Amino acid sequence: RSWVEYDAKCDFPIENLPFGVFSCAKRGPRCATAIGPYAVDLAVLSEHGAFKDLGFDATKTFGQPTLNAFMALPRSAWRATRARLAELFAADGDDALRGRATLRDAALRPLEEVKMHLPAKIGDYTDFYSSREHATNVGIMFRGKDNALQPNWLHLPVGYHGRASSVVLSGTPLARPRGQLQKSREDPWQGSVYGPCKLLDFELEIGFFVGGQLPPLGRPLSIQEAEEHIFGYVLMNDWSARDIQAWEYVPLGPFGAKNFGTTISPWIVSPDALEPFVCSTSAEKQTDPEPLPYLKEENYSSYDIKLAVDLHTPSQGSSEKVVTTITESNFRHMYWTPRQQLVHHSVTGCNMQPGDLLGSGTISGTEQRSFGSMLELSWRGAHEIPLSDGQARKFLQDGDVCNIRGYCQGDGYQIGFGDCSGEVLPAGALD
Amino acid sequence: RSWVEYDAKCDFPIENLPFGVFSCAKRGPRCATAIGPYAVDLAVLSEHGAFKDLGFDATKTFGQPTLNAFMALPRSAWRATRARLAELFAADGDDALRGRATLRDAALRPLEEVKMHLPAKIGDYTDFYSSREHATNVGIMFRGKDNALQPNWLHLPVGYHGRASSVVLSGTPLARPRGQLQKSREDPWQGSVYGPCKLLDFELEIGFFVGGQLPPLGRPLSIQEAEEHIFGYVLMNDWSARDIQAWEYVPLGPFGAKNFGTTISPWIVSPDALEPFVCSTSAEKQTDPEPLPYLKEENYSSYDIKLAVDLHTPSQGSSEKVVTTITESNFRHMYWTPRQQLVHHSVTGCNMQPGDLLGSGTISGTEQRSFGSMLELSWRGAHEIPLSDGQARKFLQDGDVCNIRGYCQGDGYQIGFGDCSGEVLPAGALD
Ligand SMILES: [Ca+2]
Ligand SMILES: [Ca+2]
Ligand SMILES: [Mg+2]
Ligand SMILES: [Mg+2]
Ligand code: NI
Repeated sequence: RSWVEYDAKCDFPIENLPFGVFSCAKRGPRCATAIGPYAVDLAVLSEHGAFKDLGFDATKTFGQPTLNAFMALPRSAWRATRARLAELFAADGDDALRGRATLRDAALRPLEEVKMHLPAKIGDYTDFYSSREHATNVGIMFRGKDNALQPNWLHLPVGYHGRASSVVLSGTPLARPRGQLQKSREDPWQGSVYGPCKLLDFELEIGFFVGGQLPPLGRPLSIQEAEEHIFGYVLMNDWSARDIQAWEYVPLGPFGAKNFGTTISPWIVSPDALEPFVCSTSAEKQTDPEPLPYLKEENYSSYDIKLAVDLHTPSQGSSEKVVTTITESNFRHMYWTPRQQLVHHSVTGCNMQPGDLLGSGTISGTEQRSFGSMLELSWRGAHEIPLSDGQARKFLQDGDVCNIRGYCQGDGYQIGFGDCSGEVLPAGALD
Repeated sequence: RSWVEYDAKCDFPIENLPFGVFSCAKRGPRCATAIGPYAVDLAVLSEHGAFKDLGFDATKTFGQPTLNAFMALPRSAWRATRARLAELFAADGDDALRGRATLRDAALRPLEEVKMHLPAKIGDYTDFYSSREHATNVGIMFRGKDNALQPNWLHLPVGYHGRASSVVLSGTPLARPRGQLQKSREDPWQGSVYGPCKLLDFELEIGFFVGGQLPPLGRPLSIQEAEEHIFGYVLMNDWSARDIQAWEYVPLGPFGAKNFGTTISPWIVSPDALEPFVCSTSAEKQTDPEPLPYLKEENYSSYDIKLAVDLHTPSQGSSEKVVTTITESNFRHMYWTPRQQLVHHSVTGCNMQPGDLLGSGTISGTEQRSFGSMLELSWRGAHEIPLSDGQARKFLQDGDVCNIRGYCQGDGYQIGFGDCSGEVLPAGALD
């Protein structure tokens, strides 16, 4: 379908056309899409007249070092851009790019030669807790089977404000956090000691970026408006320090246990690219209880995004790391949808802004092999997670690389996000 | 001491020289200080050569619509600027401003003729919970006397990430938030209804802005470094919807109950202006328990900032509102200091940035008349708070204006912050 060559397993076929930001040896950060093995410089395309009728100043917008200005445009502008890109890259499309070798060379940069950047200046970052299986697992571990789900959980998408400054791009290494650890698991009154986190974990999540012209403080979004304010989706790892969290989180929620780093994948995949993969959620419907009217979604649904977490662990007598896929999950396992999360976020009047990042919460399925965190996979350290080389893990060790993978399987193509990867460095490594 | 005239009750004597951002009919937002009845345009002063030897590009820095660029400079730059301003405004100082009528007229704008703006683009906003009396009061109400303070409270400054986009300047009206309210206070399993908050409250707080050259993600701040990263202080009202909060906050903390608006005063008062008011905290020392070494402060202390909350309530048969001072507190009643809050915020490696806002948490004293919220003043609605005109309140009603006042009393002068005020509009008023 495209004149650019790539294989059926490529993350970036012509059906995807995600948005991101890259820089290269010659040029500073600018807006881009990806196709096959290339990052495509949208500013250069625009300078050469490829985007004449999009209805906005494309050269200025795409010349920015973040996508915020583009995100602030209405959804129609995002769609027009994607449609024009599809035309430029289609085998039977417009020759304006394909037919100009110099422009092709200037605009298409091999992905391995570019440096990716955070796609947006994130104004605020919020993380939800919207997988019923995850919330149930955590509930059973900490409160027992009978009180697993809290009374509010089925009535609203529980969430908390996170730390925008600590969101980093895939590839950024993270130092094992240090902080306060409870002395005795049984008796919190014994107080705490200072030291490196011993229960370091990942959380398998999908994040989405907010966009469009949003209401000011005081005016909530309606569920009908929500879809047009979702710019697109990324993979997300909400790294978590379980021992620090257990001690600090009462009564105001997670803090230092979550603000040492949250990793996202570099390419933002649009709802339009995901549209062919709309599917029912694994809950199928929300009837027990029915959501309140402001949260009730006409077309309650999810996307069939296949998710997996690979651990790359150091192995004895080799400098290569050993890869183990330790869990496989799916975005279908979300009870509350991104639209519901966005609407609930604004219900009291909170003003949402282009560039805000909202995380789904850990995505766990019903089977043990589909759990989205090591806390659940090792059942709070009760058993070991086997690795391919015969070793095992309960939580992350120094030198481990955690990579979240995700894709939609189309007919002869896949829609991907790029890697969402980070290495755990020893405590103090970045001091 | 200054050639500018003002009286002994003025918020902005020459001993203060706070920083803020204003615009006026002639000029867009730019950086300012305040003296007596004037906002002073620092960009205009700089253009006319008043800031030659400050070691940074003052015209560019102060011409910005926020203080972020100035905040990003080291503390020595903030101090040099303040020292230079003191020289320019001192009765026996440099004649460079006093002696030039045109420059004086251009730079000094009557406060009542200018519009104040948020002083910074707030990257992240965090709120703490560091008054022992407040935490104890809330604990007694919700968990009983024996479990009032949670086991972690005396070991770390408990805090949570808030919503930066919802921070507004004094004078901004807020619509009463709507959201989910628990059907039965006794039985949460009955679920929730949607409606306007019935238990709307203020929280009397002091916020501080972070500044200086801060370590990257992964490297914590030390307690010795903390003071040089506190740019200055503002009054803060962390408006709170108690009924929404009670239902939503388990287990991840406050969310929609806090993100509909947080009001700050316009002028940022420097630690240097507050230095003469250093005092012991009302706890006097932290020995039971001693903080862990990373939190232990050599000079454990606070500032003697007198605080009060005025309610301006609609009265029958009059368009004027009636004023009642419903509480008087003091910044001394903080157990954890701003330095400790900042250091704890970064302990796991969280990267702090110039322009971040950190809130103290509700500041309550030991006496009932010094409690920092209506939740405490009315003891969760158990009794009424009398107003001057014979009416009473348990929580805020539509049309009420809540104004936080604060000042330090010097010898013949006061150090103030300006108002921290907001009116409660009916639910839906901003739809
Ligand atoms: Ca999470
Ligand atoms: Ca508060
Ligand atoms: Mg995180
Ligand atoms: Mg607030
Ligand atoms: Ni060219």
